[in-house]
Amino acid sequence: MPGISRRGIAVPASPIRKLTPFADDAKSRGMKVYHLNIGQPDLPTPTKALDALKRIDRTTLEYSPSNGIKPLRDALTGYYARFGAEVTEREIIVTTGGSEALLLTFLTCLNPGDEIIMTEPGYANYISFAVAAGVTIKTVTSKIEDGFALPDAEAFEKAISGRTKAILICNPNNPTGYLYSKEELYRLRDIVKKHDLFLISDEVYREFRYTDEPYLSALCLPGIEDNVIVVDSVSKRYSECGIRIGMIVSRNTTFMETAMKFCQARLSPPLLGQIVAEASIEGTEDYSKECFEEYLGRRNFFIDGLNKIPGVYSPVPKGAFYTVASLPVDNAEDFCRWCLSEFSYKDEDTPDGYAGETIMMAPAAGFYSTPGLGGNQVRMAYVLKKEDLARALKVLEKALEAYNSQHI
Amino acid sequence: MPGISRRGIAVPASPIRKLTPFADDAKSRGMKVYHLNIGQPDLPTPTKALDALKRIDRTTLEYSPSNGIKPLRDALTGYYARFGAEVTEREIIVTTGGSEALLLTFLTCLNPGDEIIMTEPGYANYISFAVAAGVTIKTVTSKIEDGFALPDAEAFEKAISGRTKAILICNPNNPTGYLYSKEELYRLRDIVKKHDLFLISDEVYREFRYTDEPYLSALCLPGIEDNVIVVDSVSKRYSECGIRIGMIVSRNTTFMETAMKFCQARLSPPLLGQIVAEASIEGTEDYSKECFEEYLGRRNFFIDGLNKIPGVYSPVPKGAFYTVASLPVDNAEDFCRWCLSEFSYKDEDTPDGYAGETIMMAPAAGFYSTPGLGGNQVRMAYVLKKEDLARALKVLEKALEAYNSQHI
Repeated sequence: MPGISRRGIAVPASPIRKLTPFADDAKSRGMKVYHLNIGQPDLPTPTKALDALKRIDRTTLEYSPSNGIKPLRDALTGYYARFGAEVTEREIIVTTGGSEALLLTFLTCLNPGDEIIMTEPGYANYISFAVAAGVTIKTVTSKIEDGFALPDAEAFEKAISGRTKAILICNPNNPTGYLYSKEELYRLRDIVKKHDLFLISDEVYREFRYTDEPYLSALCLPGIEDNVIVVDSVSKRYSECGIRIGMIVSRNTTFMETAMKFCQARLSPPLLGQIVAEASIEGTEDYSKECFEEYLGRRNFFIDGLNKIPGVYSPVPKGAFYTVASLPVDNAEDFCRWCLSEFSYKDEDTPDGYAGETIMMAPAAGFYSTPGLGGNQVRMAYVLKKEDLARALKVLEKALEAYNSQHI
Repeated sequence: MPGISRRGIAVPASPIRKLTPFADDAKSRGMKVYHLNIGQPDLPTPTKALDALKRIDRTTLEYSPSNGIKPLRDALTGYYARFGAEVTEREIIVTTGGSEALLLTFLTCLNPGDEIIMTEPGYANYISFAVAAGVTIKTVTSKIEDGFALPDAEAFEKAISGRTKAILICNPNNPTGYLYSKEELYRLRDIVKKHDLFLISDEVYREFRYTDEPYLSALCLPGIEDNVIVVDSVSKRYSECGIRIGMIVSRNTTFMETAMKFCQARLSPPLLGQIVAEASIEGTEDYSKECFEEYLGRRNFFIDGLNKIPGVYSPVPKGAFYTVASLPVDNAEDFCRWCLSEFSYKDEDTPDGYAGETIMMAPAAGFYSTPGLGGNQVRMAYVLKKEDLARALKVLEKALEAYNSQHI
């Protein structure tokens, strides 16, 4: 049997996937599992978008242009203008989700062996795309005691080598929920300009911010217009993860022309998703406001609740719908597995028909590259409705009590 | 400004794309352009599939599983069984079109620097995916005078080196329309087995065959079960190229587990397309039969017409909806450009409202890796209705007369 590739072996398994069989097993035992582990918003897709889907009356579902249908790119120019980013439809390429946008950006910007710098904890799939593209990710560490703020310039300077071609940020951040300040983004701007690097800014959680300050997109950083590549997606902001529509936005024409060659090879992004995405962008301000209020309420409730549990600490994230919290355990991965395989909580509020309740969380070590970091941390997504978040907090508290009484 | 990657530069521009501005210009001059250059079937998508699209009543368009929704994979097991290929739903991964299936297969099977052998003329985008994956494509030449039959074993043996990891075929073939015989596929089987290579078989044109012999999928070749990876797509067979649904089929569990890690990184294939694809597979036998009859009629009419034009030669393809034909010109690329930029034909049958008629074809040199080959050949797709094919043939004949009278 012919062997598979080294990069195939090198792609890390998802930090969550290892726990999935335990979650499946818990469910088969009749357990109610609260999924704090995933970033699939539970909110409905905008009615306007679902209506557009129902109104499709084409008789042939044919290829769209490789850079996406023009009405969608036109709608996006209006969307970015709301954030003060003036881009033309020619500076936008529609991709198959933010995922493809990332992979195509890596393939276009970096040679095999080149280096990207990102903060840790960071989105685990960045590593997988880097492995696919044969590039190396070097990390600078953001710390829970600083609320996962951007590391200082010195930390970046130390990480930069002759092979460094790009800095990659996620703003607001997955997994930490951190929202970078204007000062931090200008600090990045200066580093990028000094070393003439690409700044790849993953802004898919842009709509999820719990502050009154306006959002500062990397597209609005002056003096590095040719260095900035924004990776975006409609998945989270309109709760339509399944349609797989993302985008690359850049004013660097050489980059865009080159990325287009990869896009032409894969022919086109998904047509049906593009129609849904187009309808999601305009006239959904009420939807966005409702989402914002729902998530603000969830964030306040959930983070507050977490910090009331003895020994648990979570910074207060200003964006996205995740937090990385530290737990009073030595090995969060072991604790997460134990919650699914051995723990069960039941009281008079346990929903009818369940043998008991437990929680699924993502061990945060999988979001760090530096061995040993994040061992007592977990990433949690507050994408459940408040009643479920309340139960999840209760179950987490009881689980920590039980785990620690057994493990002392 | 930071420079882009070497691979970005190395991705070949599409053989067709260079001509697009000339076609756009011709249209702006009021010309009717017959597109023989593209493989977008003009047939309607099956009603059953369009109905499934209208019936979608989900309120949240959420992620699907990374390997695709189970009902689609289940339907596909039934589909492959019709061709005598017994596979389970666990041996199928749903991808974003055949394009993603190819890229993921390359990433999973081959290390950077490894070699794939394919026949030329071949599908130009294979080269782009190979560049993306950092692997090298070596070609063995199939010849128009042999009707583009599979080159003999000796040609493959000569091309195999210590770095060769896979042979890639497209059956029926794009661009030649050649359908490999049982004898040829067993010849490949023996080579693959002898050198323990992967056999990557792109079978997206499987339904388009103009012969009574049953289709022999690479999945049915005995003794190389762990070597075979089938790349497939619903795009062409149900005229739904835009939904971007393809698949990888393999019985090699190590390969499938590794490919899944790349799939998990990109989260999921398009949900809406999967729902359409699922509905396309069962209960569309009448649709497939109508398609077959339509294409058989077109093929007979078009190839017959081509061979009646003085100096033109096309083998009779037994599959797909393409042919590679030789023209009585020295430089087919120059001729194709001339047709769009300088030629115009008009007679009493020219459709009303047009200044004249011309044709767009793909110069075949772009489908060869060996410099100098295919210089007098073009790829043509017979995806137009018969009346348009008749006009295209007439226009081609007149264009050749005019071009050759000018160029002597």
